[in-house]
Amino acid sequence: MKNLSLIGKRLPRVDSWAKVTGEALYAADLKLPRMLTCKVLRSPHPHARILKIDLDRARRVPGVVDIVTGRDTAGVKWGVFAYTRDQELLPTERVRYVGDEVAAVAAENEEAALEALELIQVDYEVLPAVFDPLSAMAEGAPLLHEGFEKNINVHVPIHVGDVDRGLAESHLVREDTFTSQEESYFMSEPLAVAANCDSAGNVEAWFPNAAPHQKAKALSNALGIPLNKIHVRKIAQGGAFGGRSDVFPGEFITALLALRNRRPVKLVYTREENSIATRQGHSMIVTIKTGVDLEGRVLARDVTAYMDGGAYSSTGPIATSVPFLCHEQTYKLPNVRYNGFRVYTNKPVRGMIRVHGRAWAAGVDTQLDRIAEELGKDPLEVRLLNAREPGEYTPTKSFVQSCGLKECIRKAAEKAGWKDKYGKLPKWRGIGLGTNSVQTGFPLGIRGGSQAFIKFNEDGGATVISGAVDNGQGNDMMLVTVAAEELGLPLTSIELISADTQVTANDPGAYSMVTTFAAGNAVKLAAEDARRQLFEVAAEALEANIDDLVAQGGLIFVKGSPDLGLPLPKVVRMALLQQRPIMGRGHFAPKVDHSREWVKKPEGQLSETFSFGATVAEVEVDPETGRVKVLKVVAAQDCGFALNPMIVEGQFEGSVAMGGQGGMLTEAHRWFEGHLLNPTQLEYKVPLACDMPPIESIIVETLDPTGPYGAKEAGMSIAMSAAQAYAAAVINATGIWFKDFPITPEKIVRALAEREER
Amino acid sequence: MKNLSLIGKRLPRVDSWAKVTGEALYAADLKLPRMLTCKVLRSPHPHARILKIDLDRARRVPGVVDIVTGRDTAGVKWGVFAYTRDQELLPTERVRYVGDEVAAVAAENEEAALEALELIQVDYEVLPAVFDPLSAMAEGAPLLHEGFEKNINVHVPIHVGDVDRGLAESHLVREDTFTSQEESYFMSEPLAVAANCDSAGNVEAWFPNAAPHQKAKALSNALGIPLNKIHVRKIAQGGAFGGRSDVFPGEFITALLALRNRRPVKLVYTREENSIATRQGHSMIVTIKTGVDLEGRVLARDVTAYMDGGAYSSTGPIATSVPFLCHEQTYKLPNVRYNGFRVYTNKPVRGMIRVHGRAWAAGVDTQLDRIAEELGKDPLEVRLLNAREPGEYTPTKSFVQSCGLKECIRKAAEKAGWKDKYGKLPKWRGIGLGTNSVQTGFPLGIRGGSQAFIKFNEDGGATVISGAVDNGQGNDMMLVTVAAEELGLPLTSIELISADTQVTANDPGAYSMVTTFAAGNAVKLAAEDARRQLFEVAAEALEANIDDLVAQGGLIFVKGSPDLGLPLPKVVRMALLQQRPIMGRGHFAPKVDHSREWVKKPEGQLSETFSFGATVAEVEVDPETGRVKVLKVVAAQDCGFALNPMIVEGQFEGSVAMGGQGGMLTEAHRWFEGHLLNPTQLEYKVPLACDMPPIESIIVETLDPTGPYGAKEAGMSIAMSAAQAYAAAVINATGIWFKDFPITPEKIVRALAEREER
Repeated sequence: MKNLSLIGKRLPRVDSWAKVTGEALYAADLKLPRMLTCKVLRSPHPHARILKIDLDRARRVPGVVDIVTGRDTAGVKWGVFAYTRDQELLPTERVRYVGDEVAAVAAENEEAALEALELIQVDYEVLPAVFDPLSAMAEGAPLLHEGFEKNINVHVPIHVGDVDRGLAESHLVREDTFTSQEESYFMSEPLAVAANCDSAGNVEAWFPNAAPHQKAKALSNALGIPLNKIHVRKIAQGGAFGGRSDVFPGEFITALLALRNRRPVKLVYTREENSIATRQGHSMIVTIKTGVDLEGRVLARDVTAYMDGGAYSSTGPIATSVPFLCHEQTYKLPNVRYNGFRVYTNKPVRGMIRVHGRAWAAGVDTQLDRIAEELGKDPLEVRLLNAREPGEYTPTKSFVQSCGLKECIRKAAEKAGWKDKYGKLPKWRGIGLGTNSVQTGFPLGIRGGSQAFIKFNEDGGATVISGAVDNGQGNDMMLVTVAAEELGLPLTSIELISADTQVTANDPGAYSMVTTFAAGNAVKLAAEDARRQLFEVAAEALEANIDDLVAQGGLIFVKGSPDLGLPLPKVVRMALLQQRPIMGRGHFAPKVDHSREWVKKPEGQLSETFSFGATVAEVEVDPETGRVKVLKVVAAQDCGFALNPMIVEGQFEGSVAMGGQGGMLTEAHRWFEGHLLNPTQLEYKVPLACDMPPIESIIVETLDPTGPYGAKEAGMSIAMSAAQAYAAAVINATGIWFKDFPITPEKIVRALAEREER
Repeated sequence: MKNLSLIGKRLPRVDSWAKVTGEALYAADLKLPRMLTCKVLRSPHPHARILKIDLDRARRVPGVVDIVTGRDTAGVKWGVFAYTRDQELLPTERVRYVGDEVAAVAAENEEAALEALELIQVDYEVLPAVFDPLSAMAEGAPLLHEGFEKNINVHVPIHVGDVDRGLAESHLVREDTFTSQEESYFMSEPLAVAANCDSAGNVEAWFPNAAPHQKAKALSNALGIPLNKIHVRKIAQGGAFGGRSDVFPGEFITALLALRNRRPVKLVYTREENSIATRQGHSMIVTIKTGVDLEGRVLARDVTAYMDGGAYSSTGPIATSVPFLCHEQTYKLPNVRYNGFRVYTNKPVRGMIRVHGRAWAAGVDTQLDRIAEELGKDPLEVRLLNAREPGEYTPTKSFVQSCGLKECIRKAAEKAGWKDKYGKLPKWRGIGLGTNSVQTGFPLGIRGGSQAFIKFNEDGGATVISGAVDNGQGNDMMLVTVAAEELGLPLTSIELISADTQVTANDPGAYSMVTTFAAGNAVKLAAEDARRQLFEVAAEALEANIDDLVAQGGLIFVKGSPDLGLPLPKVVRMALLQQRPIMGRGHFAPKVDHSREWVKKPEGQLSETFSFGATVAEVEVDPETGRVKVLKVVAAQDCGFALNPMIVEGQFEGSVAMGGQGGMLTEAHRWFEGHLLNPTQLEYKVPLACDMPPIESIIVETLDPTGPYGAKEAGMSIAMSAAQAYAAAVINATGIWFKDFPITPEKIVRALAEREER
């Protein structure tokens, strides 16, 4: 690779200062003149028919300006796909979970809005409800949506090879069922939406989101106005973790109230509302049947998964597929069958989450550990035996163009002292290994990849205009660094305009792990385009060949002769004087098979490339309290190339926190008849910095042929494999095969007591 | 010309609604959290040395946050050109006019700021002052600036051909001296500046301006920060008229206070401050010596002009040249000499104004009228004899590629009934003709012309990103119409992002009459670029040849077959699906001779093309009161092509108001020892709508070969020629040759009385 100045360096982020000083504005901070406060009335019932909504008394509260219900929306429905358009953004006839939006008040102040909520009289006919997928699929269960038999929202059937024959030919076959509870995203920032509307009906909105263009498109459709009348604006964001891609009723309601009243409106969710009425991670019941040969080589695997999807589809088809897809990317699977069911229940809506499928991932790995034990093998060797390698195709026919999974496994194991520890640790201590893989961009609502423009100031500063969004992961820094690197300018010479749907061209959004791959490449191409234009001007002035020029350190010069170089700002001015101003543009879309579909045709290139990760966790379990102390985590990921190792490591650490520490040890929603019992930080245990173990990060660089500088995504396959490693380690420490996740102290104490009893 | 859908139509402006409803925000309307109020302490003396500034008592006023004086600025100086950098944006040692900025206070509220102003103690040493150019040039006059002998700020000497020989060979020679007073721009919006600064030192500013990139560049230099740390933002504007191009101390002060305090600051000028401390139109003393042959053909002209430039240079070199340039464009001049002097005086700073050089223009035309009379000719015929024709070069070697001056003169005269009226009107009635020409873009501070990007929304809406600014003349509408026309979309499908220096690439600004020509062409080229990309996609889908395609009515179709066309939004989506998103870019800079200089080398192509206008005014004078009633005005202009006749006529009407009605009949500053006596609407007579005569507009279309759709600038040559026509008409009505402008009722009454006395 060429000599890099900024890329690959541990540089502090351009957005840090504003965030640590509290200067950065989040949606809840926005104050606009004449701004109204919005509050939402929610269903108290998990399932009920709305018989009547009486707004008369509420409307008479002084300060109340507007109240909307489903009647005001013509029952506009939303769904990520045409065939999953099942959610009325304000229900007209039925509510389907405790928290479903029934009405929204816009008032001059919060007190008036809250008073009005209390005075809205809703007559409900309470309907029977279902709270888990198996009950929901049972004969006679109440149906949530018409046209979805047995409440099955999505069924993804995949069969590659011949699983039955594979199982029949296996030396050893195991079948186990694993379960996991719903999870909260617990972004540090609860949803807040500010929207404004001018007299011509132009709406602008600020809210945390993972995909401004996707959100704008959804709002455009839902509000019935063209995209040039709805602008999603850039705003600082407190996390997304996969849960802020598709549109929420809160966003629609706020924009609708702004549009109706031609006034600014702000809706700030409480922590409780954010837990209930945005998205949750699916719970899951998954049965995994695996057949292996004498060596532990997987010959066939048959998986059936039931996911509790809650009341509406959201990203259902994707959520039903992704655990399988990550799995088929990670392991060689000559024969594999999958039946994934996402089932409606009268619970909050579930969506994609950073760690999606704890039961799946931890189930597969811990089952393989048991198989290894039965075969008398080291689980590490069995994992290596089955690990994906570059140049292979996944079962559903995605070519794997770069893959460092084996290197990740080996390096993580070595660093963690696997050979000296596995099976040799003192009592109550254990070590576990997890392996996983994720995509870098699959086809979704926004088409055509990412686009970028670059313009120049007269003094040589450049402005990158990109639709990409930063939810906290460092995308802004990534884009600025890429542009600076390509133009040979310092970071301070690059400005970024991003995540504003009015100004910036399409970008798919910061989900499916695509931003570095797509927007990074688009900005790189735009910068290369601008650099070529700069070189054309400089080549004439320097009487040099364009191919001999380099841009570095703010200069353009013939390779080897920086002393004779021209300052880049000078070349910018020369170009202006010569009436050929520098204007860069670039676009990049991952090469995927656009004929591939989630449900009907799950075959073809899913994502242009994939990241791979392996995590090893070492734990110590306190048999008295069931408390798990994590002694050390080693996380190794093939991220292609680390554009900024500091940010990559930050992603690894966050992934271990969310996937392992929280996801496998503490985080689980608790319910009573559709009511969420632990919506806030007090009851829902999100790991804090002080809870975290020492983490050793290992960056494995395979230099992907398409990724910018060889980069793929960073961190996501750690989030998954950390969950797997934690589960394996606790099992290794206790000798108890936990099959229900997370493995909370309560479950450990109970299991140990049960073992005692036996 | 091809079939046009929107261009050339009388369409209402896209920005009208927000303006007529009062929704549009002007800088004075902006309120930001923690915003400080700024007030400026100004010099009470026309010329004085600052001995000491004591801020102690002012600083102790509760609520005062910051006070700046010249000491805080390291005496930073500004000037449009390097050789005219004579204005300290906050004076350190000397003040040079009544109103010169001495200190500025930023306070939590206006009361505190005003109280602090009163408590700032400045010790001055009053210096002798000069108030007119001739006294200023006299031996022993106090000098305002070092290095400028006799207070001559700028001397433009031009000599083409042999003027002395031409005069010697003339049949008739006349020499007359004309004078005119200073004029106010009287924009409906006084200057207001709002600025903000974040903790990283990024400054953003909103204020009415004719050239955001020019202003940003000046502020970048003055504040010593790069262009990517100073962003001039789009804001609604109440006029510019040439007076808002170079940077003002008020803009610098507000940005400086924001930068120092990392807080928003707002400075709103009173009407008095706006009249004194922004810009004024120059006063002028001009001697014109003209030699003609027997037919009235001008053989030679010798002009010497003295302009009162006030205390600083501002746009001095341009202001000293432009009256001559307009003149040389209008008339065939085989031999011409010009000596233009801009002289410093202890009066407010003078700049370019929409009607610059009343004494010049009205002098030339009314002198030619007298010459015609002496020769027994109709002034109309003499004007036609000397009128510029296409294909000619001006004396300073600008090629005139399109010119409809003669057609303007003939059509205006015919419509006004010249033949039946000239010399045949009843007593106290008169008719007069004026002719003029202006540029469409001359080289100035911002280089490289105008740049534009176009991006598309998924639903087919397009967003134009252009640096061009709209001061009220309709530039926004022009750009939107051009893009819509080229893309075959309705106006509502086009969004405009403009006049924001952070987002938009360079544009020269809305002065030198260049926006339609430069930005209009840049947007046209960007739209053509985008259309070509759309056609590439559509051609494949339609199995057609790209050259056979047209974009019209929201469709792309093979010429003649709209029924088989593809909706443009569909083509946009096809392009996205094919991963070749539509991204338009274009740039355009008028072809001018960049080696031309205002003072040292006034030779070469000044502007790529020129507009021409002729105005006829018919008046009736009340001999008792001196009041001039304008009965009718006919204004004919060669604007190349009227992109929107309604807007063009609006420009004509505004030009007649400013150039004729106000400029020639009422508007003049009055002085007492450097103190402006009539700074507000109460004393300074700006014509109101009810004062205006019926105006008949004639659009002459010469289809300029380079202008977009053949368009040049609209209205400016009417402003000049209206001044000339009004003067000629009043002279024709009274039989008195007024040589001092404006011709106020007072002057008419006095002149009539003097004639009586003789």
